Amino acid sequence: MHAGEKYSHKIVKKIRFKIPDVPGALGKLALEIGNQNAILGDITKIEITSHYVIRDIVIFFDDARHFQATMAAVKKLKGYTVLEVEDEVLRIHKGGKIAVKPLVKVETLTDLRMIYTPGVAQVCNYIVKHPEEARRYTSIGNTVCIATNGTAVLGLGNIGVLAAMPVMEGKSLILNKMADVSCVPLLIDCSQADRIVDVLAGVSRTFSAVMIEDVAAPLCFEVEEKLQERVQIPVFHDDQHGTATVILASLIKALKMTGKKKQDARIVINGAGAAATAAAKMLLEYGFRHIILSDRAGTIYQGRPHDMNPYKEAIARRTNLKKIAGPLAAAMAGADVFIGLSAPGVVTREMVRSMNKKAIVFAMANPVPEIWPKDALEAGAAIAMDGRTINNALVFPGVIRGALDAGAARITYAMKFAAAETLAALAGKHEVVPNFMNSALHHKVAAAVKAAADVR
Amino acid sequence: MHAGEKYSHKIVKKIRFKIPDVPGALGKLALEIGNQNAILGDITKIEITSHYVIRDIVIFFDDARHFQATMAAVKKLKGYTVLEVEDEVLRIHKGGKIAVKPLVKVETLTDLRMIYTPGVAQVCNYIVKHPEEARRYTSIGNTVCIATNGTAVLGLGNIGVLAAMPVMEGKSLILNKMADVSCVPLLIDCSQADRIVDVLAGVSRTFSAVMIEDVAAPLCFEVEEKLQERVQIPVFHDDQHGTATVILASLIKALKMTGKKKQDARIVINGAGAAATAAAKMLLEYGFRHIILSDRAGTIYQGRPHDMNPYKEAIARRTNLKKIAGPLAAAMAGADVFIGLSAPGVVTREMVRSMNKKAIVFAMANPVPEIWPKDALEAGAAIAMDGRTINNALVFPGVIRGALDAGAARITYAMKFAAAETLAALAGKHEVVPNFMNSALHHKVAAAVKAAADVR
Repeated sequence: MHAGEKYSHKIVKKIRFKIPDVPGALGKLALEIGNQNAILGDITKIEITSHYVIRDIVIFFDDARHFQATMAAVKKLKGYTVLEVEDEVLRIHKGGKIAVKPLVKVETLTDLRMIYTPGVAQVCNYIVKHPEEARRYTSIGNTVCIATNGTAVLGLGNIGVLAAMPVMEGKSLILNKMADVSCVPLLIDCSQADRIVDVLAGVSRTFSAVMIEDVAAPLCFEVEEKLQERVQIPVFHDDQHGTATVILASLIKALKMTGKKKQDARIVINGAGAAATAAAKMLLEYGFRHIILSDRAGTIYQGRPHDMNPYKEAIARRTNLKKIAGPLAAAMAGADVFIGLSAPGVVTREMVRSMNKKAIVFAMANPVPEIWPKDALEAGAAIAMDGRTINNALVFPGVIRGALDAGAARITYAMKFAAAETLAALAGKHEVVPNFMNSALHHKVAAAVKAAADVR
Repeated sequence: MHAGEKYSHKIVKKIRFKIPDVPGALGKLALEIGNQNAILGDITKIEITSHYVIRDIVIFFDDARHFQATMAAVKKLKGYTVLEVEDEVLRIHKGGKIAVKPLVKVETLTDLRMIYTPGVAQVCNYIVKHPEEARRYTSIGNTVCIATNGTAVLGLGNIGVLAAMPVMEGKSLILNKMADVSCVPLLIDCSQADRIVDVLAGVSRTFSAVMIEDVAAPLCFEVEEKLQERVQIPVFHDDQHGTATVILASLIKALKMTGKKKQDARIVINGAGAAATAAAKMLLEYGFRHIILSDRAGTIYQGRPHDMNPYKEAIARRTNLKKIAGPLAAAMAGADVFIGLSAPGVVTREMVRSMNKKAIVFAMANPVPEIWPKDALEAGAAIAMDGRTINNALVFPGVIRGALDAGAARITYAMKFAAAETLAALAGKHEVVPNFMNSALHHKVAAAVKAAADVR
């Protein structure tokens, strides 16, 4: 098993063990599971007798083979019995992860006569007279949609709309949990930009923002631009702007920790997809000056004679002004920052060693990064993180909440900068980014985003 | 104030009264409110002292003038003080009535890693291999949308999509409360059938049924037909089929109570809109034989030289086979059943008197019926109800739940008949329809609908 697979953990099982009731028994089991490179999740005590304890243990595995190998090793332990194995992820997903639920009580006929006919007519008439109040007296003001065509889902690629749904529901759930936003997934089984835009514009009155999600580049650029021209609510493509914003946040903090300055920092971005070009644009807008993008064909520069497209041309006019040509390694020599939004394992220790002192490495390919942070640190990087830490889930709940609270018609750079700076400021002294699992954090980001929107 | 306004009650206030603490004090106040023809809702005790009691009283009024007149009368009562008046309906609607909420817990990082990346990839991959399981492992299987263009909302008419939203949310809430269905409102601000169909077909993979709501006729017919041709999930226009089904249910029970037979019963339907034509079709399909429709221009018959359209022509080929021409009154003489889906006050006591013995009157114009049930009963009808009792909210939760449980691709007559017969059977001995506020009822309807779908 190579290092790359070691941390992907795509299979989760809840395993019921019968364990001897002696001190150290759980530790021995946990150690063996650790020896197999599987990761422990929650452990719940189910039953205790004088001779044994029954515990449910959630364990993360890379794949089916890893699961089987671990189980074989565990079964060799004497006195331990596996009672039951349940696929925990599938179990949790059964019936879906989200639903539209009432926010008001309907227990009595009086309740019903107010939320439905005849009482509801009073609110309808009020909105006819005051259409600007619709956001306040309906769910519109707090509701966004998250739309996908399933063409670029996580690291899985073009898996179609149905298989993309669990990811959409996950984001909807996070938005609600962290930022009290109501988020409706919409699956649009189509790859023509105009058709997608037509459909989303058609339902846009229902929402106060549209999130575009997991749509492959360059289609995502066209959809976002054209839709934003047609609607008066923000259109937010998280894979671009969420990712760019969390990178900016991390970079602000990492520069502070390493004593580097944005105007001097030499940055290499590997990748030329939606996230990479958005990150480059945002960093330029924020005042970074020295950025080189690189793709499979090497560094990108204006006039490169091969493997270009209009989006690469546009970003090439503003980056790599010295037109350094060559492979990724050539760009990385002497660089201060590496940002990977590309493919597993494309960065070697040697490449990290060739970077400037106090190098910063953000290796964000999903689920396996360009180089594992541990390896980058061993090769001399001062800071090294992957996409599990630098995750756009740090950004989108606060940005969307703030945009809704501001009644914004667009999400501007000022709003995204406010989000990034707030995240950088909220990270602990030795953290590059703060802990995601904290709704207060997201509400602070939202407040900053709202303030930046109001100023506009 | 004419009788027609007496029960519409479009304004609801929560009024805080300071009331003397003596026996009969609340009764005296309630009596005065009743004298003003206002209706009491819930009464909540807020504070008690030795001298007085403070109570919040929810009161339903017709309109602003009615509210003011009632308040003036109440203020003349000695010893009673009005402390506060709150618009109860607007208060309840603030922030909207529904939101997308999590169905699973996300407390720990382990939880997050299962509902979102990396764990979620396992479900995505599972669905790629087994697309037919998407309904089971995502919210798709339990989610429907309710789409409107706001052109025919309640009795309010073409009030636009924003003002229609409170009604959509009300239906969504009822569907969830009564039948555990997740229902997403979608506002489509457009009056071209093809565009509405395109938009709804575009998002249809997200849902297991599409409800069309409050779309004006004849646009609603075209949207329903064309959309149903394009998608593999049920398209249900509640204003047509929900209404037709609750009429059939009521009629089955009313015939039983009056000893009449469906093949002999002479039925007059006033109205030629979506609900009226759908009701006529469903009654014919169920075995009723003698139906006459009537509109503003009088009875409808094949070849009527004026005020026809293709939908009226189609229904005229199957109704009023004797081609009786004349005003509504001509059709009603000797009829067993009157079904009103038209306009306030168009039926007189004389017209009810002219009906057959044991006449059945369903006067369903909203919010003011063709004739008030009380007046119809006084004119000799055996059974008289209005739209508050014979309401499609009795039908749509069970029909949609049943269709989802069956994984149905269409909602057939067999399914609607099953719903109607179940409702008729569940009504109490002296009731025409059962009480709506009972989710067990809707689940029984759903079971019957599912069984009828499975047989198909």
